[in-house]
Amino acid sequence: MRVAPLLLALSLSLSAAVAAQDATRIPDAALDTAAQLRAQALADDTGWKVIESLTTEIGPRLPGSEADARAVAWAEAKFAELGFDRVWTEPVTFPKWERRSERAYVLGAHAQPLVATALGGSPGGEIEAEIVRFADFAALEAAPVGSLQGKIAFVDYRMERTRDGSGYGDAGPIRGRGPAVASGKGAIGYLMRSIGTSAHRVANTGMTRFPDGAAPIPAAALSLSDADQLGRLLQRGPVRVRLELDCGWNGEYTSQNVIGEITGRESPEEVVMIAGHLDSWDHGTGAVDDASGIGITMAVGHLIGRLPQAPKRSIRVIAFANEEQGLIGARQYAERHAGEIASHVIAAESDFGAGRIYAFDSSAPEHAQAAIRRIAEALAPLGIEHTPGAGSPGPDIIPLAQAGGAWAWLGQDGSGYFDLHHNADDTLDKVDPEAVAQNVAAYAVFAWLAAEAEGDFGSTPDAAQATAE
Amino acid sequence: MRVAPLLLALSLSLSAAVAAQDATRIPDAALDTAAQLRAQALADDTGWKVIESLTTEIGPRLPGSEADARAVAWAEAKFAELGFDRVWTEPVTFPKWERRSERAYVLGAHAQPLVATALGGSPGGEIEAEIVRFADFAALEAAPVGSLQGKIAFVDYRMERTRDGSGYGDAGPIRGRGPAVASGKGAIGYLMRSIGTSAHRVANTGMTRFPDGAAPIPAAALSLSDADQLGRLLQRGPVRVRLELDCGWNGEYTSQNVIGEITGRESPEEVVMIAGHLDSWDHGTGAVDDASGIGITMAVGHLIGRLPQAPKRSIRVIAFANEEQGLIGARQYAERHAGEIASHVIAAESDFGAGRIYAFDSSAPEHAQAAIRRIAEALAPLGIEHTPGAGSPGPDIIPLAQAGGAWAWLGQDGSGYFDLHHNADDTLDKVDPEAVAQNVAAYAVFAWLAAEAEGDFGSTPDAAQATAE
Repeated sequence: MRVAPLLLALSLSLSAAVAAQDATRIPDAALDTAAQLRAQALADDTGWKVIESLTTEIGPRLPGSEADARAVAWAEAKFAELGFDRVWTEPVTFPKWERRSERAYVLGAHAQPLVATALGGSPGGEIEAEIVRFADFAALEAAPVGSLQGKIAFVDYRMERTRDGSGYGDAGPIRGRGPAVASGKGAIGYLMRSIGTSAHRVANTGMTRFPDGAAPIPAAALSLSDADQLGRLLQRGPVRVRLELDCGWNGEYTSQNVIGEITGRESPEEVVMIAGHLDSWDHGTGAVDDASGIGITMAVGHLIGRLPQAPKRSIRVIAFANEEQGLIGARQYAERHAGEIASHVIAAESDFGAGRIYAFDSSAPEHAQAAIRRIAEALAPLGIEHTPGAGSPGPDIIPLAQAGGAWAWLGQDGSGYFDLHHNADDTLDKVDPEAVAQNVAAYAVFAWLAAEAEGDFGSTPDAAQATAE
Repeated sequence: MRVAPLLLALSLSLSAAVAAQDATRIPDAALDTAAQLRAQALADDTGWKVIESLTTEIGPRLPGSEADARAVAWAEAKFAELGFDRVWTEPVTFPKWERRSERAYVLGAHAQPLVATALGGSPGGEIEAEIVRFADFAALEAAPVGSLQGKIAFVDYRMERTRDGSGYGDAGPIRGRGPAVASGKGAIGYLMRSIGTSAHRVANTGMTRFPDGAAPIPAAALSLSDADQLGRLLQRGPVRVRLELDCGWNGEYTSQNVIGEITGRESPEEVVMIAGHLDSWDHGTGAVDDASGIGITMAVGHLIGRLPQAPKRSIRVIAFANEEQGLIGARQYAERHAGEIASHVIAAESDFGAGRIYAFDSSAPEHAQAAIRRIAEALAPLGIEHTPGAGSPGPDIIPLAQAGGAWAWLGQDGSGYFDLHHNADDTLDKVDPEAVAQNVAAYAVFAWLAAEAEGDFGSTPDAAQATAE
């Protein structure tokens, strides 16, 4: 998953507040080691092997499923196997949503099955109704209250393919809020063209939410081919669809954030945090979302842990629980560690697939900009450009950033990400081992240099933001 | 579907038998009209519109399903709408195979779902067993009798991507005969890597057969990603799989071959036959297999029917019933018309997708070769090469060819065909309207010139072949 930039303005105001500090600097010796690490990482396949292991041995990892517990045990064992100094877990509790079965089909003279998948958070139900098409979310919002009485709303918006994933932000409300909006206008069901770019017959799931007061209605996403088909059928006259979803909320579950640390040699209580999320949606094996982030960051800890000298600060690698249903592991982590914002020196998450990293940015304030530029210079041989202002924290970094934590952004090429995101095609064969190695090299350079830096990157508890949230 | 070349040797012997006849010739005036037709077809979208109509309005067309009857009515209406002079149907009776539901998953420590689909002709059943992998069909055949007792055989052969589809012939026995062979060695179930080239999470169905004496066992094909996954899991130790198939034979059904004819002006009883098949597998909407063949050949009849002068011979367009389960419509057509072989002047089927035609060949004997070369010259501006000896009759032409009928081959580029063949991705968005128009132009040139030819192309009843079959 990936969330649109939110925090830039907050970060800049934060920068101003701490601009009077001494400049943060990167020692020359650290740059030499960074260059060695970069070369080692490019020649190393640990990241790929971890991705292969997680996707093969555990498979899909829906939060709260039987595989969730197996994934936690896998992550603990993998951290230990990779030589992390400390490995521990922290509980994460959330309501459990289950998918049991799903079918959709056109009724009547043009009867035929549709490829559709329930949105996470959808209730179950068996409904039949005429569909009413909307070109986008604004058109749905503009529909008069009551106008969808007894109907199925169908939002048919085509997401744009972009390198930076910005098309996802534009389409997001269709999935997140669309069903609740349609319900408010009388709809008894909801269909949407998947938020995705795949030409193949896979539907993309993802969370939807029904705020208090909104009557939950069965909600599903169609493959792009099937959305096209409904569009063509609607040109011929009214279309009735039957939706049979067996899914819904079922009690509460406690999973774990799994954490591995390479202990710092001088300031072990100060941490550079890099992360991915351990959970996935259930259709694929969560290879690009987000076994890749797990593999990339675990490999970084492994490589840094093998260096002759430990880093000055600790490198903390977190495999977050239940990112997909609302950054739940990350939020509970930020709550639990609310008193340690300043010691989270800087944080970055890999959660945008396995494409090559092409850009670097951070929330660092003025006094840390020289250090950030040195990190950017060490990333440049990997084809990575310093792009101030272009980035945003990874999703699981948001709760920490909202509490005042500094973040970095290692921007991956996401041109092909939404061919796979939240659908059945998110499998290992889509991951390029060489691109993984480039990611590991970039995260290793970043983490090592941030851990070796003298001075901070702007992390400071920020009461204004805590209340603003 | 497409069947490997079978009949070249037979055709050559047939050629020798009739070589003493007068040479068949194409009148110059016919070539002028062919050039006009070619240009008109390239600028015409009738073929595309027919494909759009069939795939949208009817959707998947599993033989014997409710959609089978709708497709027959659609085809009758479409022939009439396109201005064919005569439209009729001929009954085709066959056993009905139904797919109701299917699930497969890995059990145990690496429990996870698999994308799999029952093979046509598979019985239903719920089984759990350890899988035994074979690299190819020969390895399965070499397994000792009894060695698969209580196991699920898993044949993991990778089909090769080729322009002419030759990789399909190599892989064919894995699906057609593999389950029966495995059953004979004690297996209680059968899994195979799909015969296909798609990197996406779609499984390719298709027929399998259990000869008398072979105990039918549940048999399914895995997506390529899932076959890869089983391969990786097997590297870690024994793998148990559960297969739940609800499918099987259920009574008998009578469908129809639907036939439209443009009546010849001089020899209406002599026909140039062009064909596609109306049925499809059930996962996609049968866009490339074989709504494309239906659209291409119907458009040819339509374009020829609009010419100021009717062709000398009749153009007969056939939408065959139930090709997928054994050329059943074509076989029953050949039986019904067994006395009319000589009047089926030449026949061709479009049943290899919607790729551009790049090659032309025929079974024509020596006395018709000059005429065939003139047809080839009229096809050359479409980028089509005359490739004597390279072709074979389309699948639904085989029964007629076996009875002595002459055939032509308009060879389509099938490089991408097995990305879509018999899987859920076989939908309209995969069809290129310009390639369809090129196909229509080629079939129109061929059909027109064959209908205008003076003399035959070698069709003659052949007693030796009738008994050989």
